[in-house]
Amino acid sequence: MENTEKNPVMPWIQEIKVPLALISYTYRTIQKRFAKDLAPYHIGWGHFAILMSVYEQEGQSQDSLALSRGFDKTMIAKSVVKLEELGLIYRQTDPVDKRIKRLYPTDKGWALQTELQQTAAGICKILLKDFKDEEAAIALEFLRKMALNASEM
Amino acid sequence: MENTEKNPVMPWIQEIKVPLALISYTYRTIQKRFAKDLAPYHIGWGHFAILMSVYEQEGQSQDSLALSRGFDKTMIAKSVVKLEELGLIYRQTDPVDKRIKRLYPTDKGWALQTELQQTAAGICKILLKDFKDEEAAIALEFLRKMALNASEM
Repeated sequence: MENTEKNPVMPWIQEIKVPLALISYTYRTIQKRFAKDLAPYHIGWGHFAILMSVYEQEGQSQDSLALSRGFDKTMIAKSVVKLEELGLIYRQTDPVDKRIKRLYPTDKGWALQTELQQTAAGICKILLKDFKDEEAAIALEFLRKMALNASEM
Repeated sequence: MENTEKNPVMPWIQEIKVPLALISYTYRTIQKRFAKDLAPYHIGWGHFAILMSVYEQEGQSQDSLALSRGFDKTMIAKSVVKLEELGLIYRQTDPVDKRIKRLYPTDKGWALQTELQQTAAGICKILLKDFKDEEAAIALEFLRKMALNASEM
């Protein structure tokens, strides 16, 4: 009872019988927490996801990023504009195929990388609180299997 | 290689080392699929989540629904207006405390329940494709643990 008062969503979460509602709740909560953590950088959760992708695969085009990570094309286009405005990434025309614009972090963008990675790592640490190492590994593989199943929807 | 061409996100998903990106990708993909499935009913994913909550706990107030399920108050307020406009739910003032507006499905709302539940069940079935029963049970408990951890963020 005391726990319920402190944590009003707990009784509902305890009763959920399907993965959908749990994934949805967890995502919404992460997104809210990210919004807070990212506010000082003037970026949102979507921008963060794009920026992390550009760190990992610099020089990728917007279209190939959308395709390889399942980002919505409209969302990615808007996020790229915003990240450019903030001076965190820049676009460079491919020298061979001039239709392709490749994305790179700017120096200012690279300077944020460690802080942003730590933000994400902090959230992952909370998510996996009280998981033993082997449980965390199994949870990750089950999530991967669900993501792969989702990718074929 | 053939698989990669058919499923361009697969190589990325295979490499992900943290739950965050997997949850985020799965959520985004479910949301897209839901948007398609729900288009005939003129409701989006957020409306769907609210409507399902009203089925499960009819007579709850908007505020207590927000609190008990972690919905954003602005989001829930907008969704309730839309669901009322569509004639799927109605608000009734509590006879004792007139500040409280309680939410109920209309007959038209109830008539959709089975179809909407089947939509959700279909997506859960895809997510859990190739999971043995005991694996699905473990996956569900790990997701619940993550959701509970998230609820304390």
